[in-house]
Amino acid sequence: MDAPAPDRLLHARAVLLDLDGVLYVEDEPIEGALEAVAALRDRGLRLRFVTNTTSRPRRDILARLERLGIPVPERELVTPARLAVEHCLAAARLRALLLMRDEVKADLAGLQEVRERADVVVVGDLGEDFGYRVLNQAFRELLAGAELVALQKNRYWRTPDGLSLDVGPFVAALEYATGRDAVVVGKPASAFFATVLAGLEVGPADAVMVGDDVESDVGGALRAGLAGVLVRTGKYRPEAVAASGVEPTATVDSIADVPTLLGA
Amino acid sequence: MDAPAPDRLLHARAVLLDLDGVLYVEDEPIEGALEAVAALRDRGLRLRFVTNTTSRPRRDILARLERLGIPVPERELVTPARLAVEHCLAAARLRALLLMRDEVKADLAGLQEVRERADVVVVGDLGEDFGYRVLNQAFRELLAGAELVALQKNRYWRTPDGLSLDVGPFVAALEYATGRDAVVVGKPASAFFATVLAGLEVGPADAVMVGDDVESDVGGALRAGLAGVLVRTGKYRPEAVAASGVEPTATVDSIADVPTLLGA
Repeated sequence: MDAPAPDRLLHARAVLLDLDGVLYVEDEPIEGALEAVAALRDRGLRLRFVTNTTSRPRRDILARLERLGIPVPERELVTPARLAVEHCLAAARLRALLLMRDEVKADLAGLQEVRERADVVVVGDLGEDFGYRVLNQAFRELLAGAELVALQKNRYWRTPDGLSLDVGPFVAALEYATGRDAVVVGKPASAFFATVLAGLEVGPADAVMVGDDVESDVGGALRAGLAGVLVRTGKYRPEAVAASGVEPTATVDSIADVPTLLGA
Repeated sequence: MDAPAPDRLLHARAVLLDLDGVLYVEDEPIEGALEAVAALRDRGLRLRFVTNTTSRPRRDILARLERLGIPVPERELVTPARLAVEHCLAAARLRALLLMRDEVKADLAGLQEVRERADVVVVGDLGEDFGYRVLNQAFRELLAGAELVALQKNRYWRTPDGLSLDVGPFVAALEYATGRDAVVVGKPASAFFATVLAGLEVGPADAVMVGDDVESDVGGALRAGLAGVLVRTGKYRPEAVAASGVEPTATVDSIADVPTLLGA
């Protein structure tokens, strides 16, 4: 059903770029990232910067991009927080136990933060503060009837000292404890990609996702009908690709190779 | 293939009794527990006290039973720690990162405790000390090639203030992060039941497991060929029974009903 990979990529009208591990790692830009983003813009491609980053609020992500020399308009940045709020509002679940850093809670405005008798437990990133007490508190709210919503379910990410646990393992812990599946609103959820495409006003066949996470970025994009390009930076590990069973539309060394791949 | 449940139970020669939630909750014996254990002994049934408790060393478990008026000979107590050591020795994996309380490590004598370059990560109970840093340390050892061994994988247990996360969710977190399954040596592993039966010198058809965990105690026993009796104390929850799909050989209100069930 797909056109051969190169053709499909050459005709793309929109590009979704993952951030962490694709454009930068911590405060270091990936070599060639600035030039690549500029080349894609020059080519007239519509861009969205789509991240599962849940450790920082949107304003910090935008500030970092600016600092790295990749200024991004607010409307081009897509994070799972807004989708989580939309989901909870649609389900009339407003009383929320929020497992995330305080500064990120601003991105969930619209929900009422509570510590007891929650309608929903929203799991974001607590980093090194993930621990028994907070997970047990969430577990008890879930047993009492709260819904489990995860901003994302990534397994791990690359930090300066090596690969580190992401949010996913803690979501998996709560799923296992309760025997129930979380509603995941970030990548690789198809609803995530559908929302982004709606904002871009293009269909999935005209869009390409570029990421370093073979499951969350590439696998999710392919399932949603987009092309999926894997970069060999960030958390990329050949073993993870083999284990995933996902076959990227293309795999390149880094974001620096993406403009050529897309004919830009 | 099974004889009708009552008959099979009436002809049992050995009884495996779970501890926490069956004989006691914290330092309170379940009503009728002392008399029930005495009645089973008087009947001449061979007993084993089989627990997934990983929060306390064997000597503490024996001391608690003595304190509660249920003295148990050392050889009648079976915990997952010895099975973990046997597994690691057989696999020649001696350098072990031990995720458990210091006082429990005595039960894993035979392994060499290390913090880096481990051959195996053994997950027991860290209680409220389960947290990001220790899980991330384990994750990195697993990525570097260590095997994941779990003393047990229970979802939750009953504490005085309610149901609380057990070891299982943290094992599930590491499994999800690495994409690999743990070797679980405690209940419900068939090897656990086989080892207990070998020590009792009876076949599975002559043995009954009594527990409050429908999956770990009853489901595990049934899969290993034993009868499985569920008690409505401890962590018992009707919803968990329904969700499990497990059909206990019999379900009774508490350990106090077990002697009658077994004709004692």
